[in-house]
Amino acid sequence: MPTILGQNQYGKAENRVVKITRDGATHHIKDLNVSVALSGDMDEVHYSGSNATVLPTDTTKNTVYAFAKEYGIESAEQFGIHLARHFVTSQEPIKTARIRIEEYGWERIEHSGKGAHSFVRKGQETRLTQITYDGSRWEVVSGLKDLVVMNSTNSEFWGYVKDKYTTLPEAYDRILATQVSGRWRFNWSHDEQKTPNWEKSYEETRKHMLQAFAETYSLSLQQTLYQMGSRIIDNRGEIDEVRFSLPNKHHFLADLEPFGLKNATEDGAVYFAADRPYGLIEATILRDGCEARIPVDLTNL
Amino acid sequence: MPTILGQNQYGKAENRVVKITRDGATHHIKDLNVSVALSGDMDEVHYSGSNATVLPTDTTKNTVYAFAKEYGIESAEQFGIHLARHFVTSQEPIKTARIRIEEYGWERIEHSGKGAHSFVRKGQETRLTQITYDGSRWEVVSGLKDLVVMNSTNSEFWGYVKDKYTTLPEAYDRILATQVSGRWRFNWSHDEQKTPNWEKSYEETRKHMLQAFAETYSLSLQQTLYQMGSRIIDNRGEIDEVRFSLPNKHHFLADLEPFGLKNATEDGAVYFAADRPYGLIEATILRDGCEARIPVDLTNL
Amino acid sequence: MPTILGQNQYGKAENRVVKITRDGATHHIKDLNVSVALSGDMDEVHYSGSNATVLPTDTTKNTVYAFAKEYGIESAEQFGIHLARHFVTSQEPIKTARIRIEEYGWERIEHSGKGAHSFVRKGQETRLTQITYDGSRWEVVSGLKDLVVMNSTNSEFWGYVKDKYTTLPEAYDRILATQVSGRWRFNWSHDEQKTPNWEKSYEETRKHMLQAFAETYSLSLQQTLYQMGSRIIDNRGEIDEVRFSLPNKHHFLADLEPFGLKNATEDGAVYFAADRPYGLIEATILRDGCEARIPVDLTNL
Amino acid sequence: MPTILGQNQYGKAENRVVKITRDGATHHIKDLNVSVALSGDMDEVHYSGSNATVLPTDTTKNTVYAFAKEYGIESAEQFGIHLARHFVTSQEPIKTARIRIEEYGWERIEHSGKGAHSFVRKGQETRLTQITYDGSRWEVVSGLKDLVVMNSTNSEFWGYVKDKYTTLPEAYDRILATQVSGRWRFNWSHDEQKTPNWEKSYEETRKHMLQAFAETYSLSLQQTLYQMGSRIIDNRGEIDEVRFSLPNKHHFLADLEPFGLKNATEDGAVYFAADRPYGLIEATILRDGCEARIPVDLTNL
Repeated sequence: MPTILGQNQYGKAENRVVKITRDGATHHIKDLNVSVALSGDMDEVHYSGSNATVLPTDTTKNTVYAFAKEYGIESAEQFGIHLARHFVTSQEPIKTARIRIEEYGWERIEHSGKGAHSFVRKGQETRLTQITYDGSRWEVVSGLKDLVVMNSTNSEFWGYVKDKYTTLPEAYDRILATQVSGRWRFNWSHDEQKTPNWEKSYEETRKHMLQAFAETYSLSLQQTLYQMGSRIIDNRGEIDEVRFSLPNKHHFLADLEPFGLKNATEDGAVYFAADRPYGLIEATILRDGCEARIPVDLTNL
Repeated sequence: MPTILGQNQYGKAENRVVKITRDGATHHIKDLNVSVALSGDMDEVHYSGSNATVLPTDTTKNTVYAFAKEYGIESAEQFGIHLARHFVTSQEPIKTARIRIEEYGWERIEHSGKGAHSFVRKGQETRLTQITYDGSRWEVVSGLKDLVVMNSTNSEFWGYVKDKYTTLPEAYDRILATQVSGRWRFNWSHDEQKTPNWEKSYEETRKHMLQAFAETYSLSLQQTLYQMGSRIIDNRGEIDEVRFSLPNKHHFLADLEPFGLKNATEDGAVYFAADRPYGLIEATILRDGCEARIPVDLTNL
Repeated sequence: MPTILGQNQYGKAENRVVKITRDGATHHIKDLNVSVALSGDMDEVHYSGSNATVLPTDTTKNTVYAFAKEYGIESAEQFGIHLARHFVTSQEPIKTARIRIEEYGWERIEHSGKGAHSFVRKGQETRLTQITYDGSRWEVVSGLKDLVVMNSTNSEFWGYVKDKYTTLPEAYDRILATQVSGRWRFNWSHDEQKTPNWEKSYEETRKHMLQAFAETYSLSLQQTLYQMGSRIIDNRGEIDEVRFSLPNKHHFLADLEPFGLKNATEDGAVYFAADRPYGLIEATILRDGCEARIPVDLTNL
Repeated sequence: MPTILGQNQYGKAENRVVKITRDGATHHIKDLNVSVALSGDMDEVHYSGSNATVLPTDTTKNTVYAFAKEYGIESAEQFGIHLARHFVTSQEPIKTARIRIEEYGWERIEHSGKGAHSFVRKGQETRLTQITYDGSRWEVVSGLKDLVVMNSTNSEFWGYVKDKYTTLPEAYDRILATQVSGRWRFNWSHDEQKTPNWEKSYEETRKHMLQAFAETYSLSLQQTLYQMGSRIIDNRGEIDEVRFSLPNKHHFLADLEPFGLKNATEDGAVYFAADRPYGLIEATILRDGCEARIPVDLTNL
């Protein structure tokens, strides 16, 4: 055979599962989008179409819903661990499971009626996690996407290389805005280790990231990115690696000179918020001595 | 000529304008997407291509940015009124202007650094307004879209018509969720009237709408919709008409019987959040004696 | 009661129905997205939540799938007429039905195997129709969206009004590109009239529209729009009214002067294809003596 | 320093460049979306914000437009090679360049006017390429996304593993539909090698892929995927590796039994086209003896 099969995986993607927990008249929501990818002894299904080792993707979907009921959803990470362990340990041909989960946040609607079962979707970032398990080693990479942040000052950009295609004027007071896509890898990797408090870890990591963004006087988006990542590594011992993909959401000063208007930043300026193209800044920040394992292409265009 | 020209309008759509106001180290943002549509003596440009009465769409764009600087953006409504008046009163061929604005909310990032110029985009609903002016009469229709809400109980659906194609079982405890698209029309229409406080009106209208959603024990989404609208009319004297387009974001109980699992709502259930198809419920609620003027087709589906 | 109910409608939106017809080994596809909206005696469901006159949206969904089997899908228009008639004539409280349909085109994959049951989605425009029926009068508005066209020359723009905010230089050889959204209304309105050949009408209307776009030497997008519409009215006697919403997809000449490069259109130029903002040109073209009935707001922007 | 910098890259993403070539009255289009990512000696910009080695992303944008004029766009691949070589060889700190390009196809509008400068966007797949260069070695990975294909028969799925969560009935005549996302890696890697004919390679690869999809009697989507990949490897000597990410676009037989209707595939059936969840099948197919280099996460969810 002149061709051979390389890495392959399959499963049901984007299972939209909502779990309501009732604590009397007070309800709680977990709202997830769960994608299952399984690998193992799957050569024959590719070569001949024999499904003898294939657990149907439909079954992986059923398992997601059944587990949400049987075990509840304490956190996206814990739920993903549960699912990954099940697939790898219950089906001999399946050697590796990767569970990816998106989580949508909700907050309560304040009102004067009885009960606490009314919610409005937060709508800000989408929380993410990816759990990989090969029967012995765990890898948990959590993160978020679509968190849009802006500093309306304290950002400069100058002192860069100029070649024959360079026309950009230097900037000493610009808007710095980005739509954060970030992933962070936990150093929890074996069942013998104590698992992190996934919910608290997320809240704290998000907070450190936002504070680093706000508190950094920025000379480049790369510098801000590094501060965001190193602040996480410095403060969260459970995390060894962070990767960010940060589009520079350009806000250009509107050119109002033709109309006899000054548009200076110090007076409060008017900006054109551009769509495309955009600078795209991506980097990994590591705890010293740790290995980089988050794929470069997990987060970018 | 066997064909004639009917209603026509033109202008620059989706001008993304961001205005920063500086109050010392404390900054404020207005983040808008402004679309201009002008009508008037425009027959010739359609018939012969003569642009003699056409103010270029590029000029309408420039005007948006210049006005943001010259007059600031107190509210989307006020800004739209300013623009509409300008186009109709400064260009003889232009008889009517319609300004549509989307507004994106931002909140401050809490941190321990100096200054208050760091923001995170709220990400919840998009606020909307549409201002129309014909030289004498104003019409302001504001609203929002993409506000996702859920009641995890206090919703039933039964007692409906059954024909030969009806298979739906009656429901006595279901999730009610929707993505609110709403518009409300102000009764301010002439310059002699006092203008509403646009910002306060929006906050209060949104609050009443959310509270009505949360506090209504629902026998149908139509009933909830009507409560949301009438609560606004009852509480906000500046508003005469409301229209909602409410998709019923179905959350179906996962069928876990094949796995020997009970999935009863009273125990906290697991749901499948469906995408398509979805019920779509649309209605106008009016102050008694007032005319319905908001177009029926808020959605184009 | 200080508030009253205005126009209202409800139904199941976005029913994705695919019908395969087998003619031996040769198969045919109809691939539709069907949205049902019903109106009638629906006051009580809004006021009190009584569903006594409400045919469930789930039933309207079932009807779509059942009718696709019972009667087939000869054309989207014919299918919509069938559905609308059923809802209005079979349920006393339902006075009006509006059926909206999107249709996705497929073409055959050329190959040397047996049979003709392999397809690739065309991916170009989405075909549209809307059927409205009140028990006696029909209104059929068909059309399309997302058809992107470009003339790389034969477009000028000059001789326009200049005010203090005008900076646009005149153009004597520019790209004209747009993403066509169009709707056309048939004069078929009663069962006694012969129905148009819906499939042929669509193909011919699309052809005339594209040819008018290509063959018009354009002094403004308005002029091109009018030519597209009047060409349809002139050639298709079954159509009395056309409305277009045409975004001007700007292609700006890249400014290469700083690099010592000439970028003249006559030599073949390089353009920056911009996203936002964009000119938006909208107009109705009517057969002389006919009434304009297509709503102005094809877009909600 | 407890944290260190890992892999990083930066550049301007999504430069929308359109190049018109004029051959008398016959025009040709190349319509690209070009993303630049550069890596090299960039530690200081992350650690201290010094931009001394940073060529601005704005400059990389300017270079894209200038090169389109100076050298034209023979193919996306050739254009990307040109850009990558420029960045790596002209700026000492830049060690690696990765250029990603999306290409949108256009076809001519048939009409009876003069000239050939009117186009309609094909709208089918988006063509892709990624060029990576480190100063000595080239890697070119091309491909496509969003090509939707369907076999309305000749697909079965049975004989799979059944566990306690399995409810799926076996299928002996089902629709097989997918939205192809594929990437293929060329074995051209050094300047001394003759470059492939990029345009012809794309057309032929696409054709083989479509034919394999159409001609394979499928017992599983994995089998079809493998046939699509191996057909390419067998026929295109310039390609050593293919990776596909194929969502199983489920078309479920509508359940019409409650209405007394038979819905058998052999009679031409009615299907519900589902959105989410969906099976997702991904695999690499390699020329025997070759290394797998396309990242697993280039194509998937």
